[in-house]
Amino acid sequence: MATPKLLVDVHTHVYLPRYASVLRSRTVAPRILTRSSGPEGKSEERLLILENEPSGGRPVGAQYWDRDEKLRFMDKHGIDISVVSSANPWLDFLSASKAHTLANELNNDLEQYCSTSPIISETRLRRLYGFGLLPLVPEVAISSLLDTVQQISRLSHLKGIIMGTQGIGKGLDDDALDPVWEAIEKAGLVVFLHPHYGVDGKAWGEKDNGHVLPLALGFPFETTVATTRLILSGVFDRFPSLRILLAHSGGALPQLSSRLASCIDHDPVVASRLKHDARYYLGTSLWFDAVAYGSEELGFKGADRKIGSKRMMFGTDHPFFPPLSSSEKWASVVENLDAIDGVQGWTQHGRDSVRGGNALTLFNLHN
Amino acid sequence: MATPKLLVDVHTHVYLPRYASVLRSRTVAPRILTRSSGPEGKSEERLLILENEPSGGRPVGAQYWDRDEKLRFMDKHGIDISVVSSANPWLDFLSASKAHTLANELNNDLEQYCSTSPIISETRLRRLYGFGLLPLVPEVAISSLLDTVQQISRLSHLKGIIMGTQGIGKGLDDDALDPVWEAIEKAGLVVFLHPHYGVDGKAWGEKDNGHVLPLALGFPFETTVATTRLILSGVFDRFPSLRILLAHSGGALPQLSSRLASCIDHDPVVASRLKHDARYYLGTSLWFDAVAYGSEELGFKGADRKIGSKRMMFGTDHPFFPPLSSSEKWASVVENLDAIDGVQGWTQHGRDSVRGGNALTLFNLHN
Repeated sequence: MATPKLLVDVHTHVYLPRYASVLRSRTVAPRILTRSSGPEGKSEERLLILENEPSGGRPVGAQYWDRDEKLRFMDKHGIDISVVSSANPWLDFLSASKAHTLANELNNDLEQYCSTSPIISETRLRRLYGFGLLPLVPEVAISSLLDTVQQISRLSHLKGIIMGTQGIGKGLDDDALDPVWEAIEKAGLVVFLHPHYGVDGKAWGEKDNGHVLPLALGFPFETTVATTRLILSGVFDRFPSLRILLAHSGGALPQLSSRLASCIDHDPVVASRLKHDARYYLGTSLWFDAVAYGSEELGFKGADRKIGSKRMMFGTDHPFFPPLSSSEKWASVVENLDAIDGVQGWTQHGRDSVRGGNALTLFNLHN
Repeated sequence: MATPKLLVDVHTHVYLPRYASVLRSRTVAPRILTRSSGPEGKSEERLLILENEPSGGRPVGAQYWDRDEKLRFMDKHGIDISVVSSANPWLDFLSASKAHTLANELNNDLEQYCSTSPIISETRLRRLYGFGLLPLVPEVAISSLLDTVQQISRLSHLKGIIMGTQGIGKGLDDDALDPVWEAIEKAGLVVFLHPHYGVDGKAWGEKDNGHVLPLALGFPFETTVATTRLILSGVFDRFPSLRILLAHSGGALPQLSSRLASCIDHDPVVASRLKHDARYYLGTSLWFDAVAYGSEELGFKGADRKIGSKRMMFGTDHPFFPPLSSSEKWASVVENLDAIDGVQGWTQHGRDSVRGGNALTLFNLHN
């Protein structure tokens, strides 16, 4: 039987209960703290991802950890499958040994979370799959990273690995990570590259603009820099089957990729280093979620990069950006679906691919 | 007689001789220094824009200051008109009084440079027009800035003002600049917003990637942040006739503008501050050079932002990015013209508008 047309969310997060407990036990960010608010002193939990976050962080609740809430959100918006990932800052704040232990535990937790989720009728697919975690922290032994890649590859509902941009302290272009890329490539796991640190906040100036500048610009800049550094380091030449999904539609990389190619051509330090024009890798090694909130941002197409509808995938960023009232649909979902519908020049088949078909292929999800 | 179809370069720089002399007199960056190179110890001048610049800066020569070289470059590439601007870092390194004096002198120099340039046959247009300079440095009196706006508005071949992103020390979203925006708006001058500082270099990591990361990413990020801060500060609500041309096709702003709108909607600090959706200003207050080196980057169009071919203008970034041999055409010119030709969905009229028609309109250049 042909697989029905499914809506698949590739960018959706969970703070697994074990992880939330770790955050609750901490006294500095990242942490979950309880504070009283309102005239009756009603207490609420708040997540502080970065120290000195504007507005004292954000309120958190069951949507962040409870699987039933995830499934309810999916049902409400017609999402058939979610490929769930831990949210930033992952294990970045832990020592190497604690990070290794917790990564293994959380990977097992996430496998359980996914493997016991409902089966979609008329298919053999479940509602939930996941991205595992590596203990990517300074001073971790490469063998610990390789062990964890092997662990994830054995957990049959985990289809990839989410990671930030810091690597083991020197970024993802660190040569020391080559054995890790090799193992990930060999295991056929998809890397989901996601920002956390943004860029230096001095650029944001003195005015109070809330979270807008770090979220709207800092996050995409971080992803853009990390991916560019990966390109320049030759990782995609050495590991041509490595597949990387970029959060937030690749940040600014699509818009700046021809400028990047031009700057490389003009720079004697790097001009002859790569096997291909920098734009080539966008159409071979990189995939893009469609979390861009607008049709025009998704509309890249054409000969050079072949991103178009072939390399983009629906995402929601749930449970972030909730609506103001619980009865509303989530604006982020509605906007991102509208954006897919609105791209000029995409066929219906292309739209269906972005809504789900591309994800089924990328994550090797068979009926 | 109808104006012939002209090719107009809106992004092309000069270090006027008076400015080059100032740079030669300095012992720290920005400076022009003479160094011996090669086996015969042949001396060459090099421009060091930032301290600790990779490769010890770049070689500079007549193309940076000699008007005949500018005209030769234009002839070689079929460019009819150039709207010339001083290059970064402008006057940023000077005291307020020196910056004020030098701005006035350089504005007069540039008027002379343009007003004595050849007339294009069959038109009343000259080959060269210019962007003036303001003494935008810390502690400058606002009255000095207003005086200089008036000076520029009286110099009939200066059609706008180039500026960096620092304002008078606190960025362009500084409320203290409101009288300056008001004066610029009233004078009908076009602001050319151009980056210089990039973003914090720690993001670039430890690998030697030459100039690539600061140039390909840092520059556009800086422009994107500055423009976003302008939007958030309400400058375009208060001065709706202000016209700002963004260098390098607006950096990452077009690609991130729907994400920006979404982040604003979700942030109580700014949600109700602006009169319009953030994307609105891209189609009303902002113009974009077509210095993006690729068709796909230029191809934004559609209902939300109306950038399309109506708000983009050919540019070259001359004299930066020279070819390796003097007989070659400049890759930056060829690539940027090819990009305009290659945009899917632009009409021939649209392409002609980007090549020159939009600039004639924006700068009010009449036959």
